[in-house]
Amino acid sequence: MNDLSPKTPAGLSGTDPALFYDRHVFLCTNERMAGHPRGCCKSRGSEKLRDYMKARAKELGFEKTRINSAGCLDRCELGPTMVIYPEGVWYSVQTPADVDEILETHLKNGGRVQRLMLTPDQVPPKKK
Amino acid sequence: MNDLSPKTPAGLSGTDPALFYDRHVFLCTNERMAGHPRGCCKSRGSEKLRDYMKARAKELGFEKTRINSAGCLDRCELGPTMVIYPEGVWYSVQTPADVDEILETHLKNGGRVQRLMLTPDQVPPKKK
Repeated sequence: MNDLSPKTPAGLSGTDPALFYDRHVFLCTNERMAGHPRGCCKSRGSEKLRDYMKARAKELGFEKTRINSAGCLDRCELGPTMVIYPEGVWYSVQTPADVDEILETHLKNGGRVQRLMLTPDQVPPKKK
Repeated sequence: MNDLSPKTPAGLSGTDPALFYDRHVFLCTNERMAGHPRGCCKSRGSEKLRDYMKARAKELGFEKTRINSAGCLDRCELGPTMVIYPEGVWYSVQTPADVDEILETHLKNGGRVQRLMLTPDQVPPKKK
């Protein structure tokens, strides 16, 4: 199949309204049947990590940051996965300590948690 | 409560990896109990609109565009709601024709569907 994807890089427009959330975090909470070869983020514990992150973000007073559940982000083998917009940075998170580090380093201080970041070449096996 | 949100505007960094999806679309499919005063995007038909958008994006060959479900985006009264990143543009979609117009005008051609766009001042009543 030809790739007919849009050719404009990101469609950014200087006239768009301001962001509704300064940072919008999506954690995959998709569930697959037990034994599925790709596994799923839910079976890897993503719901507890989402709940923890929501609670901590609220405690920290991050009022313009939204922590959301998402359906399958299609990087299951690397999960639990998370993507933060508008910057489009992806993380694989395993523990509450990972979440704490992302809250502090990325969301509070604008840095990156290099040890947890995913890169675009980390593609699901089915797509290679 | 003091707003302790991050003060850096969007944390964009010139050294971040390339976007994994050129455009990442999130449609709220959250469900609330019948009779909830805020209603919910699911009861307003968001799942059918998501399914339609996924199928049409595939048919159109938008390989680097991902259509995702999301949990509550917290703009329920305006739903079904959708946000497209990295640009952070929000839409309220009611019909398959609305979806078609967003696919063609926004995702294919990089424009905006002004008649469906939400602006940041359209805030849920509970937050006013």
